[in-house]
Amino acid sequence: MGVLAVGTVALDSIETPFGSADGILGGSAMYITMAARYFTPSVHLVAVVGSDFPDEYIDLMRDSGVDLSGLEVDRLGKTFAWSGRYHDDLNIRDTLATHLNVLETFSPKVPKHLRRCRIVCLGNLDPNIQCQVLDQMSNPEFVICDTMNFWIENARDALTRTLRRIDCLIVNDSEARELAGEPNLIRAARMIRNMGPEIVVIKKGEHGALLFTESAVFSVPAYPVEDIQDPTGAGDAFMGGFAGCLSGQQPHDLNALKTALVCGCAIASFTVEKFGPERLLGLEKSDVLSRIQAFRDLTTIPLMEEIL
Amino acid sequence: MGVLAVGTVALDSIETPFGSADGILGGSAMYITMAARYFTPSVHLVAVVGSDFPDEYIDLMRDSGVDLSGLEVDRLGKTFAWSGRYHDDLNIRDTLATHLNVLETFSPKVPKHLRRCRIVCLGNLDPNIQCQVLDQMSNPEFVICDTMNFWIENARDALTRTLRRIDCLIVNDSEARELAGEPNLIRAARMIRNMGPEIVVIKKGEHGALLFTESAVFSVPAYPVEDIQDPTGAGDAFMGGFAGCLSGQQPHDLNALKTALVCGCAIASFTVEKFGPERLLGLEKSDVLSRIQAFRDLTTIPLMEEIL
Repeated sequence: MGVLAVGTVALDSIETPFGSADGILGGSAMYITMAARYFTPSVHLVAVVGSDFPDEYIDLMRDSGVDLSGLEVDRLGKTFAWSGRYHDDLNIRDTLATHLNVLETFSPKVPKHLRRCRIVCLGNLDPNIQCQVLDQMSNPEFVICDTMNFWIENARDALTRTLRRIDCLIVNDSEARELAGEPNLIRAARMIRNMGPEIVVIKKGEHGALLFTESAVFSVPAYPVEDIQDPTGAGDAFMGGFAGCLSGQQPHDLNALKTALVCGCAIASFTVEKFGPERLLGLEKSDVLSRIQAFRDLTTIPLMEEIL
Repeated sequence: MGVLAVGTVALDSIETPFGSADGILGGSAMYITMAARYFTPSVHLVAVVGSDFPDEYIDLMRDSGVDLSGLEVDRLGKTFAWSGRYHDDLNIRDTLATHLNVLETFSPKVPKHLRRCRIVCLGNLDPNIQCQVLDQMSNPEFVICDTMNFWIENARDALTRTLRRIDCLIVNDSEARELAGEPNLIRAARMIRNMGPEIVVIKKGEHGALLFTESAVFSVPAYPVEDIQDPTGAGDAFMGGFAGCLSGQQPHDLNALKTALVCGCAIASFTVEKFGPERLLGLEKSDVLSRIQAFRDLTTIPLMEEIL
């Protein structure tokens, strides 16, 4: 079995300089799975929504090929809702509201038939809950985990325990610096690897992403998108593309990891081109392959004689 | 003839979290030429120093193979002096003092025998002075120019005139954003290209550099240096490596430009490993070639079948 993603399914309200959208489909588990499905047919979501969650969003995810047998509908509460506003410089955003709602009491239950998934994606959640998910799994081959500054600051011990149980941590650059207490990203990655994960991926937004293993560092730039409409979900889509690619490979193999990094950056680069998950809905495989080729064009160093 | 670099030769006082140094050899023209000489034997400097400039620094540059026939010694003043302090996060620095001294009245005179240099590097100077240099040159094949926020804010008209006369502008990301008035770097680069230069290079410090031409975008990451001692001069060394590499190639050729970007990043990555220009003094060609190979390892996307 392929990729299991545990995280949030949310109703997002987003303002960017280019438009706004209210109550649209969002959440880490949604973005992870909607991205991963381009790379593997076996994608499974574990999350919770509330009584207000529109049926059309359920249909949309299911019709996209995501297995929703692990999606709990909590009739006693409302769906997790997030609203944010991006500045002209889209690297800066203000969170306007976070209503946890059904997430407040969420205790993910992994259905029995999903406990043998090879690749587990732990979206950004309380690290105690991430551990509860791992407790339910049957020896997964590769566990990928996200976190954020809030947990680094407020749940350090639990996060430390989670880090010892995962294969790969994916964080952004400011999170890596904060987690390691070290401004140099290369040193920070090494320090985080010493906390547990064999592999560390640092996402750098418009500057791409870095992969760190025992023996190698690998860099992928961001695709040069001129018209970013909405950065929401790009990081989660990155994780989905990364995990989806690995599920067809030996996930500890360096070339597989490098390729997965490119797949993550490629699918993230599509995500930002439209609002919410819109761009992730209608991609063709040929679009994704062309974008991966574009990364080769963007990075391939020519072979030239007599440079010195 | 090869590379002509016009800029500053300075006495720098630098504090970083790892040490400090007083009155050491610095300046844009010094870093440009000391880097360029690894790629071409024909490197010529035009700059001014004062009566206090140590003979040993003159000897050091000359012995490194840099032609100093364009170095003016102004006996009536003191050498341009800069002092700065870097934070624990080396991306942040405070300028503690800038004593222009002989730079205040500097009007570069390009010796007659240097006016036919193929590649001209205009280090960060008043754009009016950059234009005066170009007035003296005999139709150079490729003009590369640096600038900074101060000139963008205070000499916009002169800078606009300079931009129309150059082939390539090299700026850092914040300068690109300010010059274009646009936070998206990809759009900013296109807007700057519309101001004149056929080619724009955006330096992003620890995130590497981007090359923009009419038809292509090319990205090179920064080399993952764990022990950065002193970032001073890295941007100028980048320009030197870039220019030096181009002087052995057709400088408008895309593959030559891509290779030059790698050479610039490689030589900049050495520069930060020790204080001031120390690391730039004693490199072997094999060091530089190994570093260029390391950039290939860092960026080469594996060829894998069946990703999707």
